[in-house]
Order: sequence, then structure tokens, then C-alpha cells
Amino acid sequence: MTKIYGMSDSGNCYKPRLLMAKLGKPFEHVEVSSHDGSTRSPDYLAKNPNAMVPLLELDDGRRLAESNAILLYLGEGTRFVPQDAYERGLAYQWLFFEQYSHEPYIAVRRALLTFPNRKAEATADRLAATLARGNKALGVMEGHLADSPFFAGEAMSVADIALYAYTHVAGEGGFELGQYPAVQAWLQRVEADPGHVPIGWLP
Amino acid sequence: MTKIYGMSDSGNCYKPRLLMAKLGKPFEHVEVSSHDGSTRSPDYLAKNPNAMVPLLELDDGRRLAESNAILLYLGEGTRFVPQDAYERGLAYQWLFFEQYSHEPYIAVRRALLTFPNRKAEATADRLAATLARGNKALGVMEGHLADSPFFAGEAMSVADIALYAYTHVAGEGGFELGQYPAVQAWLQRVEADPGHVPIGWLP
Repeated sequence: MTKIYGMSDSGNCYKPRLLMAKLGKPFEHVEVSSHDGSTRSPDYLAKNPNAMVPLLELDDGRRLAESNAILLYLGEGTRFVPQDAYERGLAYQWLFFEQYSHEPYIAVRRALLTFPNRKAEATADRLAATLARGNKALGVMEGHLADSPFFAGEAMSVADIALYAYTHVAGEGGFELGQYPAVQAWLQRVEADPGHVPIGWLP
Repeated sequence: MTKIYGMSDSGNCYKPRLLMAKLGKPFEHVEVSSHDGSTRSPDYLAKNPNAMVPLLELDDGRRLAESNAILLYLGEGTRFVPQDAYERGLAYQWLFFEQYSHEPYIAVRRALLTFPNRKAEATADRLAATLARGNKALGVMEGHLADSPFFAGEAMSVADIALYAYTHVAGEGGFELGQYPAVQAWLQRVEADPGHVPIGWLP
């Protein structure tokens, strides 16, 4: 059976779980966590030398890393990856935006404030920088969502799943989502889409 | 005609130029630079609210941001985007690796050391952190290339173009490529692929 190695409280690991739940596909969750160092164990490094989760393992043993690559791979041929070439391009655009301009600030600030093993890194400078850059990302999202119900065209896609993962828990990172009404309305649209499960859900 | 907004000395902006050159497709280069603040001008922010380059503008005015999204969009249907679903997944994986685990350290350290407007950020801590994380990324690449000629299967793909962009100038960021013989051999394979142009090339 397909395995997904990951942490139950990580937004990046939630992304493929949410997609698999929505697609009604069975999989096995294998807990591997950066909290206890198990992402750096020799066994896990043999599977993913970049020491990160999530990691997809197919039933034939082939593996795929990077949460948004896993979303595109699993979503291919479903309603979550656009067929139109330009809308597909927009899905890619927002997936890369999420990993470069959003996750390193919004997810990281949440980790600095809530994960005990990241406390030493939570300096005033780091918290200020991640707050500013995270709010910049939320502002870019707010601008886009003023004109558009979802991120890649008129329908929900893997880009929405990726951006939902850490945006809906941005409050845990000290971000004030009340400043972003279009983002809040979009979070509700994502949650209303069939098959939604919460971040802590495991199969 | 297709326009690509970008900086002539940026690896991210080099990526779509290199692909367009290899495909023999004409385009217009429009210089927009973070050096002189023009990525933050009102005119440019109207085109890309995330204030980054490169930006692709099609002849009908539709736009696409994020260098690796542009590579996937322009490369679709060519030899640079794999047809096999799993190899395509691997191309995605390495494109996200490049933006999350490679560019923020290898490209950023080059910018800190060589771009006059980034000099104030080049603290000892920042230089040490980017050196360690950049070497980690180069180590992951070296491990992969010990067994494989390219990053997504047996043939060159957009993943190789993306990783080549800043790896081949990593020396300008203070990285010692001599420590990574498989990476050096791969750089030569990429350069030997038909239609190669250097980073400063403009149409």
C-alpha cells in the first residue's frame, strides 16, 4: 500500500493527506518527526537524503519527496490539477509562491512559537522578519482573492490545498487573519469542498 | 511577442532565457531589477504583486510568475518535461528542492557577496548559515548524481536547467565545487546539451 512518511502536526505533511482523503484513496501514515530527530536517522536518510517530510512511497518502493511535488503527482488526472495549460501554469506559480514566499515565514513563525525544539531560534529579529514577510505573502493572497474564488482559475486545485495548509493555522504563528477578509472567505470555501479533513487527521 | 521581465545577472531569470534559447523560441527581454528598485515600482507591482522576477508575459497579455513555474509552462510538450508520470514527479521534486533547499542559500550567498545593495545583510552569522545549508544542498545533489546522469530520469529536463542556474556560479558565493566531482561532471553535461547559452546571454 502507498505510504506517506510525515509528522501529524506539520502543514507540509497535511497537504498529501488532505488530497488523499478528498480522492478517497487509502494509504498508510508512518510517523517520522523532526521533533525527535527521526528525520535524521540513518534509515530515513537512506529514503530521503534531504532529511525532510513528507515523503511518498509507492507500493513498488519508488519514492517522491517535496510536499507540492507529491500533490502534483497524486493529483494528476483529477479535478485538482487543471487541464488548461495556462491554469496549470498558475497552479505551478502558486505552489512555488507557497514554498518560497509563504511557508518560510508563516510556517516557520508557527514552528518558532509552538515547537519546543525551535524555541532557541525564536529571536526578536527572526520573529520580526518572519512576521513582515508572512504578512507580505498574505497581502499578495488577499489581492488575488479579491478577484478570484481560488488560486488557479475558477475551481479548487492543488494550489489551494498547498496554501490552505499553513494559512489556516497562521494564527498560531501570530498572524492576524482578521486583516485579510478575502483570505478568510477563501479558507471557508476550501473547507466546504467535499471530503475535507482537519490537519490532525490520519487514515 | 512573448516578453520576459528580468535581471540579466540573476540565475532565476536565466532559467527561462536558457530554455527559450534551447527551444529556439523568440522573446523580448525587459530589464527589471531589484538592484535599482524597479521590481518595486507601481507599474511592475501591477504586473507582479509579489515584486519578483522573472515574469513571463504572453502576447495576449496573460502573465505567469515564479521561474520554475515558467520553466514547466514553456517546457510542456518538449523534451525538457518528462512524459512518464513518475519522472515528471521527480522533475517537480527537484524543482521544489531548488527553490526551498538550494536557491535560498546558494543564490542568496552569491547575492550577499556580490550585489552592492545586499552588503549590509552579509553578517557573519548569515554567511555561516547560508554556507552550511548550501553545502548540504550540494551534498544531496552529489549523492543523486553518483547514480544518475540527470535529475529526473536519464535525460536532461527543466529540473537540470533550474539547478544549473545557480550551481554553476556557486563559486561566486564562496562554495568550493571541487568538493563535488559528480556535480562538476553534471555541469559539463548540461553545458554540452544542444543550444546552451551563458547566464549573461540576452536575445
